[in-house]
Amino acid sequence: MTAVRHEHDLLGDRDVPAEAYWGVHTARARENFPITGTTIAAHPHLIEALAAVKEAAALANRELGLLEPEVADAIVAACAEIRGGALHDQFVVDVVQGGAGTSTNMNANEVVANRALELLGHERGRYDVVHPNEHVNMSQSTNDAYPTAVNVATILAVGELSESMHVLERAFAAKAVEFHDVLKMGRTQLQDAVPMTLGQEFGTYAVMLGEDRERLTEAAALLREINLGATAIGTGLNAAPGYAEAACRHLREITGVPVQTAADLVEATQDCGAFVHLSGVLKRIAVKLSKSCNDLRLLSSGPRAGFGEINLPPVQAGSSIMPGKVNPVIPEVVNQVAFEVIGNDVAVTMAAEAGQLQLNAFEPLILHSLSESITHLGAACRTLATRCVEGITANTDVLRGYVENSIGLVTALNPTIGYTAATEIAKEALASGRGVVELVVERGLVPADELAQLLRPEVLARPGLR
Amino acid sequence: MTAVRHEHDLLGDRDVPAEAYWGVHTARARENFPITGTTIAAHPHLIEALAAVKEAAALANRELGLLEPEVADAIVAACAEIRGGALHDQFVVDVVQGGAGTSTNMNANEVVANRALELLGHERGRYDVVHPNEHVNMSQSTNDAYPTAVNVATILAVGELSESMHVLERAFAAKAVEFHDVLKMGRTQLQDAVPMTLGQEFGTYAVMLGEDRERLTEAAALLREINLGATAIGTGLNAAPGYAEAACRHLREITGVPVQTAADLVEATQDCGAFVHLSGVLKRIAVKLSKSCNDLRLLSSGPRAGFGEINLPPVQAGSSIMPGKVNPVIPEVVNQVAFEVIGNDVAVTMAAEAGQLQLNAFEPLILHSLSESITHLGAACRTLATRCVEGITANTDVLRGYVENSIGLVTALNPTIGYTAATEIAKEALASGRGVVELVVERGLVPADELAQLLRPEVLARPGLR
Amino acid sequence: MTAVRHEHDLLGDRDVPAEAYWGVHTARARENFPITGTTIAAHPHLIEALAAVKEAAALANRELGLLEPEVADAIVAACAEIRGGALHDQFVVDVVQGGAGTSTNMNANEVVANRALELLGHERGRYDVVHPNEHVNMSQSTNDAYPTAVNVATILAVGELSESMHVLERAFAAKAVEFHDVLKMGRTQLQDAVPMTLGQEFGTYAVMLGEDRERLTEAAALLREINLGATAIGTGLNAAPGYAEAACRHLREITGVPVQTAADLVEATQDCGAFVHLSGVLKRIAVKLSKSCNDLRLLSSGPRAGFGEINLPPVQAGSSIMPGKVNPVIPEVVNQVAFEVIGNDVAVTMAAEAGQLQLNAFEPLILHSLSESITHLGAACRTLATRCVEGITANTDVLRGYVENSIGLVTALNPTIGYTAATEIAKEALASGRGVVELVVERGLVPADELAQLLRPEVLARPGLR
Amino acid sequence: MTAVRHEHDLLGDRDVPAEAYWGVHTARARENFPITGTTIAAHPHLIEALAAVKEAAALANRELGLLEPEVADAIVAACAEIRGGALHDQFVVDVVQGGAGTSTNMNANEVVANRALELLGHERGRYDVVHPNEHVNMSQSTNDAYPTAVNVATILAVGELSESMHVLERAFAAKAVEFHDVLKMGRTQLQDAVPMTLGQEFGTYAVMLGEDRERLTEAAALLREINLGATAIGTGLNAAPGYAEAACRHLREITGVPVQTAADLVEATQDCGAFVHLSGVLKRIAVKLSKSCNDLRLLSSGPRAGFGEINLPPVQAGSSIMPGKVNPVIPEVVNQVAFEVIGNDVAVTMAAEAGQLQLNAFEPLILHSLSESITHLGAACRTLATRCVEGITANTDVLRGYVENSIGLVTALNPTIGYTAATEIAKEALASGRGVVELVVERGLVPADELAQLLRPEVLARPGLR
Repeated sequence: MTAVRHEHDLLGDRDVPAEAYWGVHTARARENFPITGTTIAAHPHLIEALAAVKEAAALANRELGLLEPEVADAIVAACAEIRGGALHDQFVVDVVQGGAGTSTNMNANEVVANRALELLGHERGRYDVVHPNEHVNMSQSTNDAYPTAVNVATILAVGELSESMHVLERAFAAKAVEFHDVLKMGRTQLQDAVPMTLGQEFGTYAVMLGEDRERLTEAAALLREINLGATAIGTGLNAAPGYAEAACRHLREITGVPVQTAADLVEATQDCGAFVHLSGVLKRIAVKLSKSCNDLRLLSSGPRAGFGEINLPPVQAGSSIMPGKVNPVIPEVVNQVAFEVIGNDVAVTMAAEAGQLQLNAFEPLILHSLSESITHLGAACRTLATRCVEGITANTDVLRGYVENSIGLVTALNPTIGYTAATEIAKEALASGRGVVELVVERGLVPADELAQLLRPEVLARPGLR
Repeated sequence: MTAVRHEHDLLGDRDVPAEAYWGVHTARARENFPITGTTIAAHPHLIEALAAVKEAAALANRELGLLEPEVADAIVAACAEIRGGALHDQFVVDVVQGGAGTSTNMNANEVVANRALELLGHERGRYDVVHPNEHVNMSQSTNDAYPTAVNVATILAVGELSESMHVLERAFAAKAVEFHDVLKMGRTQLQDAVPMTLGQEFGTYAVMLGEDRERLTEAAALLREINLGATAIGTGLNAAPGYAEAACRHLREITGVPVQTAADLVEATQDCGAFVHLSGVLKRIAVKLSKSCNDLRLLSSGPRAGFGEINLPPVQAGSSIMPGKVNPVIPEVVNQVAFEVIGNDVAVTMAAEAGQLQLNAFEPLILHSLSESITHLGAACRTLATRCVEGITANTDVLRGYVENSIGLVTALNPTIGYTAATEIAKEALASGRGVVELVVERGLVPADELAQLLRPEVLARPGLR
Repeated sequence: MTAVRHEHDLLGDRDVPAEAYWGVHTARARENFPITGTTIAAHPHLIEALAAVKEAAALANRELGLLEPEVADAIVAACAEIRGGALHDQFVVDVVQGGAGTSTNMNANEVVANRALELLGHERGRYDVVHPNEHVNMSQSTNDAYPTAVNVATILAVGELSESMHVLERAFAAKAVEFHDVLKMGRTQLQDAVPMTLGQEFGTYAVMLGEDRERLTEAAALLREINLGATAIGTGLNAAPGYAEAACRHLREITGVPVQTAADLVEATQDCGAFVHLSGVLKRIAVKLSKSCNDLRLLSSGPRAGFGEINLPPVQAGSSIMPGKVNPVIPEVVNQVAFEVIGNDVAVTMAAEAGQLQLNAFEPLILHSLSESITHLGAACRTLATRCVEGITANTDVLRGYVENSIGLVTALNPTIGYTAATEIAKEALASGRGVVELVVERGLVPADELAQLLRPEVLARPGLR
Repeated sequence: MTAVRHEHDLLGDRDVPAEAYWGVHTARARENFPITGTTIAAHPHLIEALAAVKEAAALANRELGLLEPEVADAIVAACAEIRGGALHDQFVVDVVQGGAGTSTNMNANEVVANRALELLGHERGRYDVVHPNEHVNMSQSTNDAYPTAVNVATILAVGELSESMHVLERAFAAKAVEFHDVLKMGRTQLQDAVPMTLGQEFGTYAVMLGEDRERLTEAAALLREINLGATAIGTGLNAAPGYAEAACRHLREITGVPVQTAADLVEATQDCGAFVHLSGVLKRIAVKLSKSCNDLRLLSSGPRAGFGEINLPPVQAGSSIMPGKVNPVIPEVVNQVAFEVIGNDVAVTMAAEAGQLQLNAFEPLILHSLSESITHLGAACRTLATRCVEGITANTDVLRGYVENSIGLVTALNPTIGYTAATEIAKEALASGRGVVELVVERGLVPADELAQLLRPEVLARPGLR
């Protein structure tokens, strides 16, 4: 039989396991939300950010003479431990929960209080000494503490995503350099267009990621505006003058994140605009990452009955029934992460739209969806870089063969032989299956050596009339 | 200066153009909803269905002795004209409107009343004789008349969509027959897999459409359940006993649609489940149509640097700058319709979720989105059939060449030469660039004539060990 | 140091932990897909269904003389154990993975093979005796074995969801009976409309769920069509005559699910229509569940400055800062599950649309999203029933007070006092703040006792002119 | 019989109406895309932007000596007319079209050429003098001209949306001032929370709009990067040195939009990131606008059985069956526009994701969806401002009554009477239905005059311990 301790709340008495750092509020929340089986410990940045908020609040309350130094110090020490990675397994409420984050905030209050009690030499549950609500949650409401923690956690997670995107960006950029003089046919609408280099093609993926990282950084910066000090609805009821500023300052110092108190706390407490915005940027990243992976799968299609322009490194056997088959499994998994992120964006949108009056009760889903999108995208970028892009090789002969054999090549000869002659050549090439170069030389339109000059990669793939 | 007539409503006096069949309620609605510039006349099935509902109600009210025969007959005659295509230009309220369809219903009441007045030899506006509200809308509320009309309109529109899908289905099926013995490489994950026929490939598109049509028919059948007689919230307040049954019977006779009165009118008045369901089925159709078009664009990619397996009929010049370029513009436009339908499904979802208590105020957007999806999908199917699929030709040599040149072919030889030998052949083929058949013959594993027998299309593309 | 065993695949040698039942293919997949950290063991129905497919295939192969009885029996025994709940922790590949399910299928093949080897008294890794690929996967491809397992798993999961929905439906229906004579104001567009009963309001939620369950059952029935025997692309290459039928029969017997072999296996192998359809139905359920929860939160708003019509049972303290506050946390968590399901529907849609040619490579995300939606919806329904709906009480006096005080009441008097008098009463009531009943009596329009008769709940809330 | 003129293209001969300014390419496009029935003339900013691009190109080509001055001047004059509003009815291709905008570009080339011919005194169709392709489209491809025009058109449309949002922002801000001292209960999770002012509530809507406008401006700024000069795929094939810079400079001068040539034209030609980004911001605006309208509908619910805190101005009769009913139709229509915008965002997302290799073929749908979202949002904002927000009045007595009657009021007394006493008061108030103030006075906890002081609006609704 498990040892228990007795706790009490508005609904009455309730036993909790003696060894648990969480208490009665957490116990009820676990019963109330048996939804996903995934606890908020799955979002470590959130746990760390919650601890940072509690620590900042304790320091501010101490400064303002509201909290006794001994209690404040114990709370601060407990929070520092949690930020260092301790006690995450005590954060046991479900990631999908009702109550606008109250249960997550209560879980944090209880764990911090009980750890602080231990540090002070007391038994867990001695809330007369350190109270989850009265002391750990002092000057706070779930409605400011929780969103502030979500903001900080998201900023930290986005920083990691940006790094992972940078790894992928560099991998693409390296290929752009490696393939800078590999001539190939460009395609529009899946139809042969005009020549370019494979380096230009890979360079594009790098440039896209660079732009996306800029947008991501801007979107995350919007989250620096916090509502700590707003208490229940933004009016700051029961928060002392100077508290918001002090807590914000401490939070900045503890986390290194340049948070700022919002100018309008009533607005900041109910507004989910910055989350919707960030989710939109994550979707943008997903869209382009998916497009890039679609291209990689297309360019490596084959080996015989496809484009066959590039080779993705084989990372696992593709089929039991088909000997030697290797599939583009890494781009495929990235595509799926992208679809998941796009789906999550819709969930975030609906959750944000459903907010009513002074609060959005659905922030837990917003946090969960964003956190999932951010970490999965980061994993996808690193995996794509290290297990695919870095090992890509080019089938140079195939690529050049397509150019030489292409009808679209004739476009480059427009200024030299004229549009009418070019059209004639194009028609004959298509009908006969013969090559444009061959036909041009045969008709004596351009001498073979001049033609070779006109079709040099550095000429064809760069702007300018020739 | 335009001649006007004076009308009056709860908000006061108001002039309307003398020649307008619509009146004061419509006039206010036009000012209140200057949103899209598209009037409900853009949805002719809705106008016809509204007229049918008004006609059915008038006949029921006459039967029950609530409406004088002369007035009822005039209303019925006016409605018949509208169902025949007349006066659609008098339906002038915006397709996106507040008020749960009240303005559309009011617009219908006013047009019917004024046309009935004309038929009786009165001037428009003589509402003491035929009143939009008291007579045309008798025993009805917007909340039952409008949704009933939306249901009927949607059933009619779906019938047309199903026919258009059938046209496309037959076009694909004809190609399946035409290409039934054209051998080709199947592909999984864009990598060469094992042989099949081009007929099987096209047959799949036909089968998919057939299944989708069945689902569409089932979804539309859910709309046969109507709430006419529910009045304001489903309690049937102020509707006479027998009215719901009589009105439903007349509506069935007038439209030929086998509508039935819902068992629970309170539920039926607020529930948008059948619309969400239908929208989901339209999305399903869109998803598969888009996938089929993606395939067509892929299979016809080239002409030189792509798959080049099939040719789509050229329907317009593809580029001014690139001589001879022809693009797959018909599949492309179908893709875009599919994306639009998928987007509309999200709009329908949100509108349905936003319903509150006894009514969904957002049915006008649901109607508009569904109607757009249905008609655009129908146009897309017919266009795809007649301007693309029917003219598709196969590059038989290319297709057979891929098979003969394919490494995946070796899978078919597993039972004959064994998995180990097959793997050896596959490896050497990939490394050397040589053909599987060539290597098998060279190594004397299978005599050339037996090999030819093993690789016959009818053998390779059909189930069974050989 | 962990003991290892040596394995080998196309990419070369590779050590795996000696105690692992999974082998080299699983090891590579774990490295390739470090995306979510959630393994496929999170979807127990999938594990069971995979085992059932392997068992059915082994029995069919044995019947056809392709697999030695001893090996077949060992495979069957291993599969039965897994179906009984054993070895689920050995299914370690990520839920989001590239490769169209190949890694999941390989994981299953390896675990079954190694457990079968144990049962036969051999060491793990003795693939010369029982080979994951040659024996366990005999006559199969990932492309038929995996989708078949996904279908079966989904059917089982849907069955559980339907039961959970039924629990909620009964809870609502019980309240409909309990509140059948509690008169209240109905509302349209959040404005007071006409009277109804609270029982009708709750009855609606029950009816909606009943209809949704019917649609869910129909959608799941579409999944009974399986493609086992299709092998790689539906042509059944290398599957023996009679195999598909035999495997399907055994699968039916093992699982109790009435699966049927699809008529067109090429189509069935690439088509995700049934998944998109099911996802659409799940979305429909989510939409209506969310709407119902929105209503519950609205009706219980207050306690003083809201509708205050019903009381949700308190299940946890709502706020630390606001004494006595209790929030509608159970409906709130259900709303969030609904938003998640709606988002998942978009992810499923995109994954389905992205399928190319003979296969959809993105089925793992489809399975994951559907499975998540199904289980979360089931949990949400049970939670809503047991922790909220069953404990709801009505504030009968408030409800009746709204009716008596309502201007909308005048609608019910239309047939008695006439529309003109009714409008006058309505105007005066709104301007003066007085009650309709009071004004009617005061003006002597209807005697007080007759009025009481006219406003009886059983009269007002039921159809018919009075 | 209509007079015709004969034209010719790659597909052969073709008659077009003699009076049409459009030619053979447009004629074929009309037949190919009979999808929506809405022509691109529905997007006037696009027509104007296309004319501006053609004008800028002609000026650049003239400057570079590529185009004869007389021809250039005629093109410039024709474009200026179109920018001034002329000939928009000649832009007749469908808004949803395949071909990556080729048909729209061709339509523009043909109309400009034929109008230029007229200005030069020639008959329409004299393409030997001014050729749609050779002269009007000189140095361009659809793939740079069309996206550049789309960017410019979108920037112009966004400017108008921002103005409309500003109108609404000011309307909300004016109400914030008007209601600055109207005390009311704040609500979280639809449950009574703590006091605030109605001014704060309306101020929030204004602040949200202000933030959204900033994000919108930033998103539109990303569109200033254009790819004019990229020609087919970004390599600038067949564009003269200096052309891109000159054309960009002229476009800047003509439109007043500070466009800049993209640094990487290959990337810019295929990237739809800025459109996805803008769509995400439009969705953000929609989400918050919808939330604000949900609030307005909730706060004005009633008149008797709802919150009844504010009155929306009546703009039309709400019901034929219910005398005196007025509904919140303006917020309702805004909600629907928001849902439409959110759906359009999904369509844009899918279209962007579907781009392949060097071009996105689905930009026409992106343009159409964005344009629809922008204009509908603008109309919604203006309508909401002028027909609803400006006329909102407060029911001051109701609002104050809720505060005085509220249990949440006790939160404000925590610092004065202590949390324990506050909890006791809250419990008794809830059980007895009595008021907090009454109970506090009765128990002698705070003298009545001091209590009145503590509960002054300026105290309760502003931060700080009291």
